[in-house]
Amino acid sequence: MQLWFSDEHTAHARLQIRLKEHLYSGRSEFQRIDIYDSHEFGRVLILDGVLMLSEMDEFVYHEMLVHVPMAVNPLVERVLVIGAGDGGIVRELVRYGGIKSIDMVEIDEMVVAACRAHLPATAGCLDDPRLRIYYEDGLRFVRNKADEYDLIIVDSTDPVGPGEGLFTKEFYGNCYKALTKDGIMVNQMGGVVYADDIATAKRSYERIKSTFPVALCYQAHVCTYPGGLWLLGYGSKGLHPAHDLKADKWRENGLDTRYYNTDLHTSSFVMPNNVKKLLEG
Amino acid sequence: MQLWFSDEHTAHARLQIRLKEHLYSGRSEFQRIDIYDSHEFGRVLILDGVLMLSEMDEFVYHEMLVHVPMAVNPLVERVLVIGAGDGGIVRELVRYGGIKSIDMVEIDEMVVAACRAHLPATAGCLDDPRLRIYYEDGLRFVRNKADEYDLIIVDSTDPVGPGEGLFTKEFYGNCYKALTKDGIMVNQMGGVVYADDIATAKRSYERIKSTFPVALCYQAHVCTYPGGLWLLGYGSKGLHPAHDLKADKWRENGLDTRYYNTDLHTSSFVMPNNVKKLLEG
Repeated sequence: MQLWFSDEHTAHARLQIRLKEHLYSGRSEFQRIDIYDSHEFGRVLILDGVLMLSEMDEFVYHEMLVHVPMAVNPLVERVLVIGAGDGGIVRELVRYGGIKSIDMVEIDEMVVAACRAHLPATAGCLDDPRLRIYYEDGLRFVRNKADEYDLIIVDSTDPVGPGEGLFTKEFYGNCYKALTKDGIMVNQMGGVVYADDIATAKRSYERIKSTFPVALCYQAHVCTYPGGLWLLGYGSKGLHPAHDLKADKWRENGLDTRYYNTDLHTSSFVMPNNVKKLLEG
Repeated sequence: MQLWFSDEHTAHARLQIRLKEHLYSGRSEFQRIDIYDSHEFGRVLILDGVLMLSEMDEFVYHEMLVHVPMAVNPLVERVLVIGAGDGGIVRELVRYGGIKSIDMVEIDEMVVAACRAHLPATAGCLDDPRLRIYYEDGLRFVRNKADEYDLIIVDSTDPVGPGEGLFTKEFYGNCYKALTKDGIMVNQMGGVVYADDIATAKRSYERIKSTFPVALCYQAHVCTYPGGLWLLGYGSKGLHPAHDLKADKWRENGLDTRYYNTDLHTSSFVMPNNVKKLLEG
């Protein structure tokens, strides 16, 4: 059977991937959730018709959101994860013995249940004893926190639907407050190819800049995301991602990463001229 | 009208782009040539049904093939370009006043004529007085050359059809011989996402390694190419792309590049672990 999923990047461009098998469909109070197996990309998670992850390249995104801040501050003990219902962020975090607690705030319990059942490659670590999952709105959760987390990772959907509040100035301000003095926040920002993605990334970057003394973007090549090159945001109270990188210390962890390495860490912050212009212009 | 072009990345994945207007179709003795205007990517050149360039991102590819070697050896005077019928490589080369001659060897005269007529943004510099175009087989052309060129740029199609000979060990060996003592060769190698593209890149890299004392790969993010991240090859008789980079000297040219900068120059050679493994494994 020829069964194709279209990920609509804009009204005029789309990625089509051939599906192998239907695994799950459901509708939560927040969104529609679909999981299929595909021929080229392994299993794929689709929320409200938009491709969220494929097993073929999710490691790029998850490793870059976790190992970049962990290599800057190896002393991270308390982590807050917003979104990330597929479990990929937690899978990377639990590789660090030094991490003592992970609070994960995912608004949609049905996403977590669906991923536990059908995406074991990402959701397989959600029973780690250091993890506590809160099925709540991340925006509200972080409002009451102060000086509690060494690292906040915002793995949100795009700023339409349930992810909208996670791109506001208020939210970034609350993240700042929730962080300890060496605290770092990283987040998914948007793409660099299509106008809507650029606008999203730019807005997010401007808000992080107006909130954090150190505010930068870095890149990850996630081939199933629109345009393929994705921007991640880095905000901190003082630690600089390049100058404060503890490369030797990080390598002592002995983690066998599929994408991340400490040279790539530094180079991922180097932007081509067109992306610089998009962000600063 | 809804008119869509499908670029088939594999049997199970494709990029679809919506076309605005048909501009040209022709069949040469080597291949079928189509040029359309599109909604999202500007004009597109399609050879034998495969997307070769879009006006929206061709600058990434062309800048990285030209400015990387030019920033390593600013003394380049004589350049050989193989393929590159769309004129994008020549457009970047003629920005350097120090370049005295450019020999461009394109097998298909109809490609050049079609691009001159319909892709002025890339083909607009093909009347530069330093340029001489040879409508010949590049493999054969380079066979008789020794110590003639400071830089060879191989802007070939993939190794099926007319581009096939440009991925052989014999061809790279002849390029080595055709180069002067500080000579550099760069070429398009293949993608890092899909199996066929990886195999092509790997074979090309192995052959460059067995031909040139300095042999490396670097990356460019060309979003309309399959998988979005493309590998370019760098082979030289001695000059190293990072250690011998003349960043200050290059910036003295005052070129306003859209993608390339001298920081990106260095970072484009830093590979993620998965690509390292693909290339070395």
